[in-house]
Amino acid sequence: MTATAPDDHRELPGRIMAREMAEQPAVLRRILTEGAPVIRHVAERIAARAPRFVLLTARGSSDNAALYAKYLLEIRLGLPCGLTSMSTVTAYGARPDLTDVLAVTVSQSGGSPDLVASTRAAREAGAITLAVTNNPDSPLAGVSEYHLDIMAGPERALPATKTYTASLLALYLFTEGLRGGDGAPARMLPGLAERLLARHDEVRALAGRYRFAERMVITSRGYGYPTAKEAALKLMETSYIPALSYSGADLLHGPLAMVDNVSPVIAVVTDGRGGEALRPVLDRLRGRGADLMVVGPRRYVEKASAGFVLPTEDVPEEIQTVLEIIPLQLLAHEIAIARGQDPDAPRALAKVTETH
Amino acid sequence: MTATAPDDHRELPGRIMAREMAEQPAVLRRILTEGAPVIRHVAERIAARAPRFVLLTARGSSDNAALYAKYLLEIRLGLPCGLTSMSTVTAYGARPDLTDVLAVTVSQSGGSPDLVASTRAAREAGAITLAVTNNPDSPLAGVSEYHLDIMAGPERALPATKTYTASLLALYLFTEGLRGGDGAPARMLPGLAERLLARHDEVRALAGRYRFAERMVITSRGYGYPTAKEAALKLMETSYIPALSYSGADLLHGPLAMVDNVSPVIAVVTDGRGGEALRPVLDRLRGRGADLMVVGPRRYVEKASAGFVLPTEDVPEEIQTVLEIIPLQLLAHEIAIARGQDPDAPRALAKVTETH
Repeated sequence: MTATAPDDHRELPGRIMAREMAEQPAVLRRILTEGAPVIRHVAERIAARAPRFVLLTARGSSDNAALYAKYLLEIRLGLPCGLTSMSTVTAYGARPDLTDVLAVTVSQSGGSPDLVASTRAAREAGAITLAVTNNPDSPLAGVSEYHLDIMAGPERALPATKTYTASLLALYLFTEGLRGGDGAPARMLPGLAERLLARHDEVRALAGRYRFAERMVITSRGYGYPTAKEAALKLMETSYIPALSYSGADLLHGPLAMVDNVSPVIAVVTDGRGGEALRPVLDRLRGRGADLMVVGPRRYVEKASAGFVLPTEDVPEEIQTVLEIIPLQLLAHEIAIARGQDPDAPRALAKVTETH
Repeated sequence: MTATAPDDHRELPGRIMAREMAEQPAVLRRILTEGAPVIRHVAERIAARAPRFVLLTARGSSDNAALYAKYLLEIRLGLPCGLTSMSTVTAYGARPDLTDVLAVTVSQSGGSPDLVASTRAAREAGAITLAVTNNPDSPLAGVSEYHLDIMAGPERALPATKTYTASLLALYLFTEGLRGGDGAPARMLPGLAERLLARHDEVRALAGRYRFAERMVITSRGYGYPTAKEAALKLMETSYIPALSYSGADLLHGPLAMVDNVSPVIAVVTDGRGGEALRPVLDRLRGRGADLMVVGPRRYVEKASAGFVLPTEDVPEEIQTVLEIIPLQLLAHEIAIARGQDPDAPRALAKVTETH
């Protein structure tokens, strides 16, 4: 899993990432058919133990997937949640009392030593532990009481794409399972993901717009906020553009000063309450003359400088998160290629990051 | 509180912010003498109710102060914590069961409608509510069961400085009070803050280094991480430099690709376990040829391209956070002035941000 074969990406930069992005509909289908019964079973067993709080632990793209789970758990299950500051356990040796706490750790590889250590510590402190990984044989899966397999197959490009959307779907099905639901609306996702991937040419045109951007701001609210963070990470990993992500409300508390007419803003607008809550932020951005690209419903895209229309009709807001990242993955890929970089193997990064 | 007088900052850009930064030793002293008994009393009453979990809610600089409290609560009290995603309550109407939960809301003005609404909702949901504000007559103080006054006096510059360090100290004394401590080590802070402020010339020289930076990365781990986030916010608010902050571990998961020899990195190194945990990240950064400025103990500054030595001898790691932001506030102020901007009144921002 660690490295791409040396001659695999010489000829066609970004072909591994492109292939893995294209696999997403198949991965989503696999989770819905083969994965869902196991996920539901795990959810039922955990629900029977009635956790009162949820702590989520992850890094990088998995941290953005964990943030999505936080929204689901707070909004749809009324469970208070926190994202772990891992160093409190690994560097400072904190040992909080985790009785009644569900500790969820999300990691593509399941191999990072700090995640293994903090999950082991959580289990010793009384937590119900659940690992969500792409490798059932990983050390993280081994130390956790429960495990969900995201079934994405090996991921070889350094920027996570299919493992990100797979984590989102697995976490959605799990949280629905906790409340006794079957997550049936998710069955529309593979087909919709296919439709988005087929619109690669639209994204290529957008990439031309941002090819020379020196920085970007990405904003959203609610269920779209994990997408804003993940899109910023993809842009930084592949094209090295400093991309700053803020919730719409936080953007107004300081960072707005940084937005001017040469700093493009991407707004991820969900069709629902998150998008509604973002509306005054979009008005402020337009008032400042910002170049605004919207990924979202047509009525929002039409008022922006540029955009990508998401098919959100009849798609519940809470699963739009799985779709809206796809054009932004494609965008990061295309901008990197336009800038002469190889998104398969960004400088300085290793696939399994060994943080302690 | 909303605006600076129109002619107050024409002549000397940044003089209001400079004055408020200079007030910090006096504000810290006031909290330690007049504020501490009240803070301890509130802490004792809350401790008697034995909260199991803490939810922290804030935006902007106050959010960074809340993150500091999260480290204190997790490490020193073993209380699991979460930072609230406020839109789950205000946009989606989530009503989690908050029995046994302490809900802490931090806000300089105490006036932002979304903070008031989410605190009211937390109280209705059974939480013990505590507001930490600079205004005991504010709506937020009104809806909260308990209130801590940070006693910083009116803050008129738009970038928060004295209210930030005041919030840190109030939260430190509160969390120490929860565990029956008196926070005595904090008594060294006003004198040390004075010594830091007296070294303005050193900071001016550093500002010359970064005047033309097009972006900056700021990193830390543990108790220094809130400082990294707050320093990034100050730089963006005052000089509009896109400043990206990452915990050292997260930096290795993606954003490191963005660091090159033209993107300066500021590392906030605590003298203690956080700094130790950051050491491999500093090695990686040096290995990439990054321009690295360290704010921290002399032995770390000596290995960096530039730096500001913090007097950390005999200063417990958990209160270094109150000191290490001061040279970075000065730096943001100086860079803004060097770039011809007025840090007192950044474009686009209002002092009380009305997010809903």
